[in-house]
Amino acid sequence: MLKQYIRKDLMNYHLSESEIHDYEIKLDANENPYPHSEKVLEGLEHVLKNSELLGRYPHKITSKLSEEIAENLGINSDMILVGTGSKELIEVVYKVFLNPRDIVLLPNPSLSAYDASAALCHGRVIKYELNRNFNYDYKSILEYVKVYSPKLLMIGNPNNPTGTVMGVDMIEKLLEKVKCPVIIDETYGEFYDVSGVGLVKKYNNLIISKTFAKAYGLAGLKIGYLIANKEMIKLLKIGLQSYEVSSFAQHMALLVYQDLDYYKENIEKIKLVRAEFASKLQTYAFVDKVYDSVCNFVLIQYSDDRILEYLLENKVLVRTYGNDHRLKNHLRFTIGTAEEMEKLDKILDGFDAWSKN
Amino acid sequence: MLKQYIRKDLMNYHLSESEIHDYEIKLDANENPYPHSEKVLEGLEHVLKNSELLGRYPHKITSKLSEEIAENLGINSDMILVGTGSKELIEVVYKVFLNPRDIVLLPNPSLSAYDASAALCHGRVIKYELNRNFNYDYKSILEYVKVYSPKLLMIGNPNNPTGTVMGVDMIEKLLEKVKCPVIIDETYGEFYDVSGVGLVKKYNNLIISKTFAKAYGLAGLKIGYLIANKEMIKLLKIGLQSYEVSSFAQHMALLVYQDLDYYKENIEKIKLVRAEFASKLQTYAFVDKVYDSVCNFVLIQYSDDRILEYLLENKVLVRTYGNDHRLKNHLRFTIGTAEEMEKLDKILDGFDAWSKN
Repeated sequence: MLKQYIRKDLMNYHLSESEIHDYEIKLDANENPYPHSEKVLEGLEHVLKNSELLGRYPHKITSKLSEEIAENLGINSDMILVGTGSKELIEVVYKVFLNPRDIVLLPNPSLSAYDASAALCHGRVIKYELNRNFNYDYKSILEYVKVYSPKLLMIGNPNNPTGTVMGVDMIEKLLEKVKCPVIIDETYGEFYDVSGVGLVKKYNNLIISKTFAKAYGLAGLKIGYLIANKEMIKLLKIGLQSYEVSSFAQHMALLVYQDLDYYKENIEKIKLVRAEFASKLQTYAFVDKVYDSVCNFVLIQYSDDRILEYLLENKVLVRTYGNDHRLKNHLRFTIGTAEEMEKLDKILDGFDAWSKN
Repeated sequence: MLKQYIRKDLMNYHLSESEIHDYEIKLDANENPYPHSEKVLEGLEHVLKNSELLGRYPHKITSKLSEEIAENLGINSDMILVGTGSKELIEVVYKVFLNPRDIVLLPNPSLSAYDASAALCHGRVIKYELNRNFNYDYKSILEYVKVYSPKLLMIGNPNNPTGTVMGVDMIEKLLEKVKCPVIIDETYGEFYDVSGVGLVKKYNNLIISKTFAKAYGLAGLKIGYLIANKEMIKLLKIGLQSYEVSSFAQHMALLVYQDLDYYKENIEKIKLVRAEFASKLQTYAFVDKVYDSVCNFVLIQYSDDRILEYLLENKVLVRTYGNDHRLKNHLRFTIGTAEEMEKLDKILDGFDAWSKN
């Protein structure tokens, strides 16, 4: 009865409801394993005395946080749009630009939320393939743009879950040729030293998406931002509409942004642990391939699928990809603390020894 | 250059960026003027020691809060969908049901976010008019449904900014005739004793939207929920997708929900203050009409538009409606604390005396 009213094109979509498993080590969601800095936690106590942050609506144009971000990036605050998580902000871009059946070019493999959001916004998804090592192929992307004349081109940089990057040179070469709006999702940008932010002034079709969820440890608060030319930000605000961003989340993001050194130290720790863990992974018989990653995660291809159950039994959560065309037999480890990764090493040693028998 | 890419049908929309005015009394956004309970603030301290609420993503299906709400309402938790604010949740409903150019029937006057969201979701808005006293007209609504065969019918109950209601009898009579999904926005439902929740089991096309922003004082956190039949909730989850809800906001909402008596007392205070304030308004020469309200706000029609500047000069923020067809010369006062409203009375007395000279 109800089904006659729902959009027929959405019938195949459903909310991916992950099962809830018991865990001791949670490495499935690329979260930051470190606690917040003393300074941030002290600032948080202030909330207890300031009920405005709970009871009053945030002002729609979140000036204080935008200004702090802008100053840090050396741009004007009218080039920043703060919103809920970066996935929600990418949907804001879709809403503003996609007429029904307009094409969004997405990398494959990449984040499934890019697809689902495009479908919800009546867009049509075409995927350009990353190469065999999951790297970007400049010529292939240009070919797709030429053939499909997309309304939007998406680049994950670094890309999730592959951990691969497109260098600034290649981005600029692309922007010289591609005239439609280009979204560069830099959700993991802080783990890597290259960003497209420097190109935003020159290319008014460039939109960069960033988040406080990963490097800055605020996944539980849902706050991110877009960076683009002033004119573009003005257009994107049409899509933001009623999406005020939690005052509390803005306040916390501001606190984090005022203590960046602490978070940068944690990023360095994560990079070190990642390098060690990636080398260790190379030594296991059940690992077919370890993909280079510049992020807080590592993707591997495995040859023995008993590893999945083994990890669950040992209460380690990782990200798996079911029967996905290019990602079956792949799994992604988030980089936890050094202690967590040592424990994981032992568990993997155990599997390696057992599986060889 | 960029404009050739943006949706042409959105060109007339823009984010309503309200100017920032200095204020002493903020009565423009229907926020709750009371502080949170001691119990809730104690619970908040726990956040300081539990970094999971900041650093980890919330689980997509927010079971603990849903269960608490469901228990309180005497329904199953699979009839609840928690999400960011109720405006965002209404957009989720639009996304799931609206094919391009599908019609949404909205009350006029009502919340402008209903329109903007429909436009973003490629829907077509048709407005049915409230009567001269801004009450719902059952026959007229049925006539609109018959003529336009809408995909969705929206009812604000109580309606913002008119403060008027549709009784449960009329709702049920409507649901006997209307087969498309019907959204009842009960953002202000806690200020009034009548709700459509009891009808959700019987009518599987009924969706009720509620929020923690108003009666429960969490406007700064952006958290609300939908109530509907299990089958309907399953469909709506398709539209929710990546919209995880802030773990912190869920935690706070749970704390509030466990101390409802405190919030109910504040609701009673607000009702008393509203009654007094509404009578007082009747005595002023510059007030043409005071609309009956069952909410935490009162709408008036004024005859002297110097009142707007006078309020600003006296640092009182209220909601105004520019040149809106039916709401010009109207303004809405949120009901603040008794102390705030006494101060306001004096300010209005001053205007009344001055304007008569």
